Amino acid sequence: MSDIKKYIEANKDRFINELIELLKIPSVSADPAYTQDVLNTAEVVKDRLEKAGCDLVEICDTPGYPIVYGEKIIDKKLPTILVYGHYDVQPADPLELWDSPAFEPVIKKTELHPEGAIFARGACDDKGQMYMHVKAMEYMTTTGNLPCNVKFMIEGEEEVGSESLGWFVKNHHEKLANDIILISDTGMIANDIPSITTGLRGLSYVEVEVTGPNRDLHSGLYGGAVANPINILTKMIASLHDENNHITVPGFYEKVEELSRAERDEMAKAPFSLENYKEALDISAVYGEEGYTTNERNSIRPTLDINGIWGGYQGKGTKTVLPSEASAKVTCRLVANQKPGKIYTLLKSHI
Amino acid sequence: MSDIKKYIEANKDRFINELIELLKIPSVSADPAYTQDVLNTAEVVKDRLEKAGCDLVEICDTPGYPIVYGEKIIDKKLPTILVYGHYDVQPADPLELWDSPAFEPVIKKTELHPEGAIFARGACDDKGQMYMHVKAMEYMTTTGNLPCNVKFMIEGEEEVGSESLGWFVKNHHEKLANDIILISDTGMIANDIPSITTGLRGLSYVEVEVTGPNRDLHSGLYGGAVANPINILTKMIASLHDENNHITVPGFYEKVEELSRAERDEMAKAPFSLENYKEALDISAVYGEEGYTTNERNSIRPTLDINGIWGGYQGKGTKTVLPSEASAKVTCRLVANQKPGKIYTLLKSHI
Repeated sequence: MSDIKKYIEANKDRFINELIELLKIPSVSADPAYTQDVLNTAEVVKDRLEKAGCDLVEICDTPGYPIVYGEKIIDKKLPTILVYGHYDVQPADPLELWDSPAFEPVIKKTELHPEGAIFARGACDDKGQMYMHVKAMEYMTTTGNLPCNVKFMIEGEEEVGSESLGWFVKNHHEKLANDIILISDTGMIANDIPSITTGLRGLSYVEVEVTGPNRDLHSGLYGGAVANPINILTKMIASLHDENNHITVPGFYEKVEELSRAERDEMAKAPFSLENYKEALDISAVYGEEGYTTNERNSIRPTLDINGIWGGYQGKGTKTVLPSEASAKVTCRLVANQKPGKIYTLLKSHI
Repeated sequence: MSDIKKYIEANKDRFINELIELLKIPSVSADPAYTQDVLNTAEVVKDRLEKAGCDLVEICDTPGYPIVYGEKIIDKKLPTILVYGHYDVQPADPLELWDSPAFEPVIKKTELHPEGAIFARGACDDKGQMYMHVKAMEYMTTTGNLPCNVKFMIEGEEEVGSESLGWFVKNHHEKLANDIILISDTGMIANDIPSITTGLRGLSYVEVEVTGPNRDLHSGLYGGAVANPINILTKMIASLHDENNHITVPGFYEKVEELSRAERDEMAKAPFSLENYKEALDISAVYGEEGYTTNERNSIRPTLDINGIWGGYQGKGTKTVLPSEASAKVTCRLVANQKPGKIYTLLKSHI
């Protein structure tokens, strides 16, 4: 263990600078304006995997953004670990909430990070974590300590639903064969509590557009007599939860596994302070599905959230318009046994 | 009457060109970016009133945009007509729905306008109508036909609630004294049906902002456990109408006058084709308060419409964000006896 600490100390500045270079590239997969940056990031990841000691590194085409695959096979009889990570990031907006530009990384000490931490979009989702595994590999190949075969699969569409990942996995069974998968994209309960994540919620994402009259109308001349797409959209969205915050889409909970009392008691032992949670978010109360705790609501229970909504006049001042259309982006977070395609169908037929 | 027709023929091109010049100025009162344009428009209106024959024209300061006042007093014993109009316009967006730029007027023949009409923001609300009265005045002063005293009061805040107009009227009782008020800002039932407007709905406008956590959150890590401002806002808005599309704000209908059966029968005689109405708007059905016809819903009944809504991610693609805030602009259209201040208070305490 002291060897690895020495290696880290000796290479610390290089490690940080390399990570900062990676964080500077705005690999926003959601926005086509950043296509070239996403592709450039894949190239940089390829280069880093080669330098970390992989024997073979490939940028693999997919129907979407490419997946960077790397491997070092030292002995086919030894176990193989597959490391998963992603090189794309979320859009940086709302920009006004950043203290420093999202793609100009800065190192700052804060109350939560007394030793300093890098602040940039992607620093902890997921370039930082992915990079940690690349550097662990570098240490082990450089010092001859690698005890197993290693494969890397780093994708570029995690933030937009990982559609090509499923395609890639289906089409490359042999290449990806492994004994253990190590995921570089989870969290820890606390800085000093080692945590094993045994499951994560999935996703079903839809965009709803409500169109009404063929043009924006004057709310004085037409208001009250013509359906207003925003009024209709809000009614539609509001109807998706009942008064206990249960989701009302018929069939939505059909496959949801109910945890036993014992399992829920075990979960409740994880360190968690509701007061700290509320304080960190500046909220006076938590909110969610009746009958479940905060930690249950954000882990074992499926959800339905509106991620964005827009329609009508959003500028300064007043405009008495009855708009022609309104839209919303809707995500369902799904738990074990819920299939995104099925949930999409249920949601669509309910709306 | 043939004199006026001759005068119009002789001056038609000048009339149209002058109106087009006026329409080119983007006097958008809602958006502070256009402040100078709104002020410039007041100057042009002043100039036109002087040229139309007013003896006295003033740009009168108010707490907001100025009001252009003009008068021609030919004999104090004769009746005085006060002409009201406004020189401000609505914002031009959504820009993509314009066939030609909003502030570059074009003359086009269409099915509805076989003789051609000017298309520009403000052409029929309200620069066109106001201008018609200015030119009628010009004709009468130029030809010595003016049979009465005339006053003009042209404001610049009609599209943002006319707040300074109330102030101005209160502070200039004597200046505005008149026998008849002629309003340049109403419509006609049809091009060949002379119409007298005896009442118009008023307005109460509020902006609602719902704030939740102090930053945008990851909907996978927090979704379901923290109140989502968009979900809350949509629930709030949806709750403002019941299943019959009656407004649920307690006390909202308290002062609303109910018309007698005879009055409603009289109203129903006005020419109106529901089929044409739906066709013109490209809608398959009308929608509104149970128990009232379309023409009643948009005239004698108060309404509550959402004019704009926004929150969270509105760009292309997906972003699984649980947003920190969401906002909406809400208008109530009010009928006789409903006071905007009172309705604002009721709405605020209900929300």
